Amino acid sequence: MSHEVSRRLVLAGSAAAALPATAAPALRVDGQRLRTTLEGLSRFGRPEGGTFADGVSRTAYSDADIGGRAYAMGLMREAGLNPVIDPAGNIIGRRAGTDKAAKPIIIGSHIDSVRAGGNFDGDVGSMGALEVLRTLDDRKIKTRHPVELAIWSNEEGGTVGSTAFAGRLGPDALDNLYYGIKLRDGLKRIGGDPDRLAQAARPAGSIHAYLELHIEQGGILDKDHIPIGVVDGIVAIDRYEVTITGFANHAGTTPMPGRRNALIAAARLIEAVDSIVKREPGRQVGTVGQLAVFPNAPNVIPGRVEMTVELRDLSDTKVIALGAAVQARAREIALETGTDMHFRLSERVLPALATPAIQAHIEAAAKSLGLAFIHLPSGAGHDAQLLAKLGPMGMIFVPSIDGISHSPKELTPWSDCANGANVLLHTLLAVDAAGV
Amino acid sequence: MSHEVSRRLVLAGSAAAALPATAAPALRVDGQRLRTTLEGLSRFGRPEGGTFADGVSRTAYSDADIGGRAYAMGLMREAGLNPVIDPAGNIIGRRAGTDKAAKPIIIGSHIDSVRAGGNFDGDVGSMGALEVLRTLDDRKIKTRHPVELAIWSNEEGGTVGSTAFAGRLGPDALDNLYYGIKLRDGLKRIGGDPDRLAQAARPAGSIHAYLELHIEQGGILDKDHIPIGVVDGIVAIDRYEVTITGFANHAGTTPMPGRRNALIAAARLIEAVDSIVKREPGRQVGTVGQLAVFPNAPNVIPGRVEMTVELRDLSDTKVIALGAAVQARAREIALETGTDMHFRLSERVLPALATPAIQAHIEAAAKSLGLAFIHLPSGAGHDAQLLAKLGPMGMIFVPSIDGISHSPKELTPWSDCANGANVLLHTLLAVDAAGV
Repeated sequence: MSHEVSRRLVLAGSAAAALPATAAPALRVDGQRLRTTLEGLSRFGRPEGGTFADGVSRTAYSDADIGGRAYAMGLMREAGLNPVIDPAGNIIGRRAGTDKAAKPIIIGSHIDSVRAGGNFDGDVGSMGALEVLRTLDDRKIKTRHPVELAIWSNEEGGTVGSTAFAGRLGPDALDNLYYGIKLRDGLKRIGGDPDRLAQAARPAGSIHAYLELHIEQGGILDKDHIPIGVVDGIVAIDRYEVTITGFANHAGTTPMPGRRNALIAAARLIEAVDSIVKREPGRQVGTVGQLAVFPNAPNVIPGRVEMTVELRDLSDTKVIALGAAVQARAREIALETGTDMHFRLSERVLPALATPAIQAHIEAAAKSLGLAFIHLPSGAGHDAQLLAKLGPMGMIFVPSIDGISHSPKELTPWSDCANGANVLLHTLLAVDAAGV
Repeated sequence: MSHEVSRRLVLAGSAAAALPATAAPALRVDGQRLRTTLEGLSRFGRPEGGTFADGVSRTAYSDADIGGRAYAMGLMREAGLNPVIDPAGNIIGRRAGTDKAAKPIIIGSHIDSVRAGGNFDGDVGSMGALEVLRTLDDRKIKTRHPVELAIWSNEEGGTVGSTAFAGRLGPDALDNLYYGIKLRDGLKRIGGDPDRLAQAARPAGSIHAYLELHIEQGGILDKDHIPIGVVDGIVAIDRYEVTITGFANHAGTTPMPGRRNALIAAARLIEAVDSIVKREPGRQVGTVGQLAVFPNAPNVIPGRVEMTVELRDLSDTKVIALGAAVQARAREIALETGTDMHFRLSERVLPALATPAIQAHIEAAAKSLGLAFIHLPSGAGHDAQLLAKLGPMGMIFVPSIDGISHSPKELTPWSDCANGANVLLHTLLAVDAAGV
């Protein structure tokens, strides 16, 4: 890993060196300060006796989350952002604009992590947004629109805070458990108010724009040594729960020809998902990630398999077509194997397309900074997909080394963090000045 | 099911009717009495409020097992067999022979069941052996060799009683748990004596022969409407624990081409086991029955899969060759999928061939009774494979409807139970008269 990191750092250094100094805009965030705030945040949820490289377990509502939130609010207070906690547990600070009638631009991300997660997912976008506002203060730059800095609560457990902010968190969700804590109780622990949840919601059309910086969590930027990703949108997801029913019998006494082996059928379906998703060009992905065998004994032919099939693409039409193709093949496999196959669509997430004008502002910002960029979809869900319900939305990606995320090994070089914050800064100013 | 049963009963009836009455030997067991003892035994472990069709949970050392054993010992006492419990928990009765120097012929099986098992696995052979001795008494037939009726303890939990009888149960095994009970404590519960376990062992060469009647537990006899199976032997088993290591990553953000998906590799290996086992003629079987995925979440590419591969055939040479072929294919799959595959041979059971002379006696007995027979291997393990260590061994199979066993649906028509007991009776007399 250290080899790749040093390679990346050298490359980033080279790229910066290659940029004519005169072509660069003078306005830049303080990359060292950003690093310091990220390192400060990394102490909350770090394994005991560990270092930065050991990542964090800062799951929402945990003591580590509460500690990290207090740290962030302290920094926001110092920056004059007067942070408050809304009923959905979101931390929201505000920097005034010159036009009192203007709608706010919201920037931010989240600081909760998965269990045994890393120091970049969410953190870079949250601390990067703070660094942008600190930089504006340092340079005494006023924006026309007020800018709100949002640190969304419990992103990893289902974008809870941003969903409520978009007015889409039903009261039933409050009884859901997250690592053993009911959301209702979790919200109280972090200063939210589940009984006033509806008051966290903002109406559609009430924001000027939402901008989020985030690590890619995939390996596309890293593989091609591209520092900036302009996100086309956040993918649609169809998730199926598949039950395959065969017939459990003694693995020693049942001849091969008459078997109705649910795991043979599952094996063919796993291969089918992979080949169907790969057989056409594009960035669609398909995964069987969860699978259970019944009765699951070495000497019993599997009688039942339960598994998930998850399909993602920016185009929900493509996701639906892939699901249909997988199910068509499943019907053939059922006939081949003497099994029954049942598909249930357990979750459908619609795509959230990034606003084209904001994508153009991000491109322009990257160009002005001499940073190469490509367009790519976000395969992971983000708070931005909820904010897209309220107004124009754009997302900026920075590289994840080897595409690793949700792991202590998650890594984005400090130079890439600074690059991303600089693009956020210039995009914010463009969106503020030009509209979207 | 009732359709198949009535079909079977009709067919068995027709076969009996087709047999010229004069050609049949006069000596027959009392099929009605056998049925009555089996129905009596079925009460021990029957689900509360259930019927015979609901099967039994009579796992070793349970109250149901203790009840069933007391029932069997009562019947054995009535039959003058003076049953005793040996230190390994085996119930052993004895009928004297005319030659005091002759070695015993042992007949029997087991009466413990799997959890949620049926009324025929083990029971038919145990009560069938008792019925044979009752018939000899009724007809006042003396044998030269003493005949011992053995009901082996805890067959389903690893042929514990017969393994100790063959002198092959190490003291370490006494600490193993079976449904939460240490074998040591279980043996005490059923009247055994773990501290004197070695005294349960009989030396090799100390028995004249061992004969066991058992249900097939497979569907070969039922499918072909054959009432008697002459067992060639009990198969060799090689069981492998396979660990496949890929790389877990986000299922949404990780492009398809770079994935190292352990479950794709597992799917190919599952198919490979099936196709390698099927590609040559023979009765060999191969099964992946147990499989676990890590981390096992719908949105995470599986980073590790642990699974079993079990291979069985009467020829251990073939089992070893199949294992080698599977491992060769696994190496290819590892290269194809960017995963590591590790095979560990976790269990090797050597085949136990039935003594050819006893097979010939079983054939002759079936012929004399006008019963069709075929030869077949036992794909399941049996107490007989341990008894084969001590002297000549033979096994008689009767049909399992639809090949179902280890299930309340396990079913062998009463006429087939009686056929099997009759073959056991005549085989016993032949082995007694002619030697083996």
